[in-house]
Amino acid sequence: MRKIKITGCAGALPDRKVRFGDQTRYRLSQGQTLLDLCESAIKNALADANLTIENIDCIIGGMATPLQAIPCNAALIHERVALGRNIPAFDVNSSCTSFITAFDLASYLTDTKRYNNILVVSGDTASAALNPNQRESYELFSDSAAAFILSSCGDDCGVIDSAQMTWSEGAHDTEIRGGCALKTAFQFTEENREDYYFDMKGKKVLKLSARKLPQFLDSFMEKSGLTLGGIDVVVPHQASKALNMIMPRLNISKDKYIDHVKDYGNMISAAVPFTLCRAIHDQRIQRNDVVMLLGTAAGLTANVLVFKY
Amino acid sequence: MRKIKITGCAGALPDRKVRFGDQTRYRLSQGQTLLDLCESAIKNALADANLTIENIDCIIGGMATPLQAIPCNAALIHERVALGRNIPAFDVNSSCTSFITAFDLASYLTDTKRYNNILVVSGDTASAALNPNQRESYELFSDSAAAFILSSCGDDCGVIDSAQMTWSEGAHDTEIRGGCALKTAFQFTEENREDYYFDMKGKKVLKLSARKLPQFLDSFMEKSGLTLGGIDVVVPHQASKALNMIMPRLNISKDKYIDHVKDYGNMISAAVPFTLCRAIHDQRIQRNDVVMLLGTAAGLTANVLVFKY
Repeated sequence: MRKIKITGCAGALPDRKVRFGDQTRYRLSQGQTLLDLCESAIKNALADANLTIENIDCIIGGMATPLQAIPCNAALIHERVALGRNIPAFDVNSSCTSFITAFDLASYLTDTKRYNNILVVSGDTASAALNPNQRESYELFSDSAAAFILSSCGDDCGVIDSAQMTWSEGAHDTEIRGGCALKTAFQFTEENREDYYFDMKGKKVLKLSARKLPQFLDSFMEKSGLTLGGIDVVVPHQASKALNMIMPRLNISKDKYIDHVKDYGNMISAAVPFTLCRAIHDQRIQRNDVVMLLGTAAGLTANVLVFKY
Repeated sequence: MRKIKITGCAGALPDRKVRFGDQTRYRLSQGQTLLDLCESAIKNALADANLTIENIDCIIGGMATPLQAIPCNAALIHERVALGRNIPAFDVNSSCTSFITAFDLASYLTDTKRYNNILVVSGDTASAALNPNQRESYELFSDSAAAFILSSCGDDCGVIDSAQMTWSEGAHDTEIRGGCALKTAFQFTEENREDYYFDMKGKKVLKLSARKLPQFLDSFMEKSGLTLGGIDVVVPHQASKALNMIMPRLNISKDKYIDHVKDYGNMISAAVPFTLCRAIHDQRIQRNDVVMLLGTAAGLTANVLVFKY
């Protein structure tokens, strides 16, 4: 077990709530940015951990999308919450599952006491790139942020095992082609506007996930010696309403996993930590519980991480 | 010592060479992308390691700038060199020093044998955002890529110690404000064109670096118990011609560090690995040598990593 303990967490939502049928989504208001949500989540996570920024010795941005092309997101977050301090800041990005990859890597850093209190911040500005003509994605995503304090600890908490795989045949099933180096903002025209929007081929993603995920999870369970019976709570990436189609294929029963899609939509990189934090604060997850984080991301990437809370 | 061994490396340059006085720079040709350079560097690094892509069990994109906002760079690189395989792919980003941060994190993964052969790829498309009106930066940067195979090993090689710090008072001294979530491509106009270019406040960066770096290095040397006398070669980030002003302040003598700025310019995230790889292939670095990677990055971030080759 790689020793790491969740000592505090918080999510942050924008005030603006939008509804599509019975589905609730959140979008930034004019003038508000993701950094405002990050700052709020971090302050509340620190309070939840009974710590201050002075106790933090590493800041990891675990986000899917860049705020600026340069510098990294973590440096901009640092400016908001740690200006004047020398806390190292860097990003870890595996798209929607960035938080799981960051947690995974952080566990090596706390286990070896390289760092004692790591702040991981996730969140994305979905609304910056949603395509009003692609209803499936336009009505699915929310803007939000979530922050976790991950700390070194004794033998009582830690990552039991984890795995990640990427199948790049899905690299273009979920993407934003324009805005960055491959197709710059300078090349933007009204004619190629669609290239600058978030583009999701929902059915293709679902098909590839349904094909890859069962085998991915089976091989992980076999390698780790874990059984689904030994997992108390599964926190899946809140990818879409299809969660309820994918979970039975993985033999994960309805009472074991959390589905917040109706209430929050797909929060991209914040989906897993936001949902995990709610489950902790609602006491659905209690100390000593064995928790599985599980999700697919643009790439197509899959992550699984099992930890003792 | 965290066990990790460089088993192969390669750099890749575009064909197009440009000159500014006695300075040589490299820029992508029309139709060529950074992914072409990455693919070439990876193939040559694998050959150098006497390995094939089947031996690689993790791909890390250690880059400063995004190719697309979604998915991460490593997934797009995966598509080029590992299509049909399930190798996990994710990015690590601390701007110009991303390779050092990736090397640092990778050492935990090889040391614990989480992965046996990690492919780290660095490189950026400087030319996508260079501002012809900002001569200082326009004439400084090159497009390039570099790939390293970092492998698990015995006690003969490894990271002796490493450190990172970020001072976000410099967050806006080196930046590209536009193109991503905070200022989208949709907001681009001819009037705000400058916001979409790379913007470097050279004097401010230099001043902050000169103020922070000596103390950063001193505290690292003290903590690690290392002495400059025990370091065989220093591979610094090739930030600018000011390298020759900064190094003496750090008491690093001219015969000990490598300066390629005249021949290659600032290659952003590829600068450190490209220079390191050349030094290895030129046998300036030999097995058992103690090597220091050192650099500052947009953030402002500083990284230092000392390893036994």
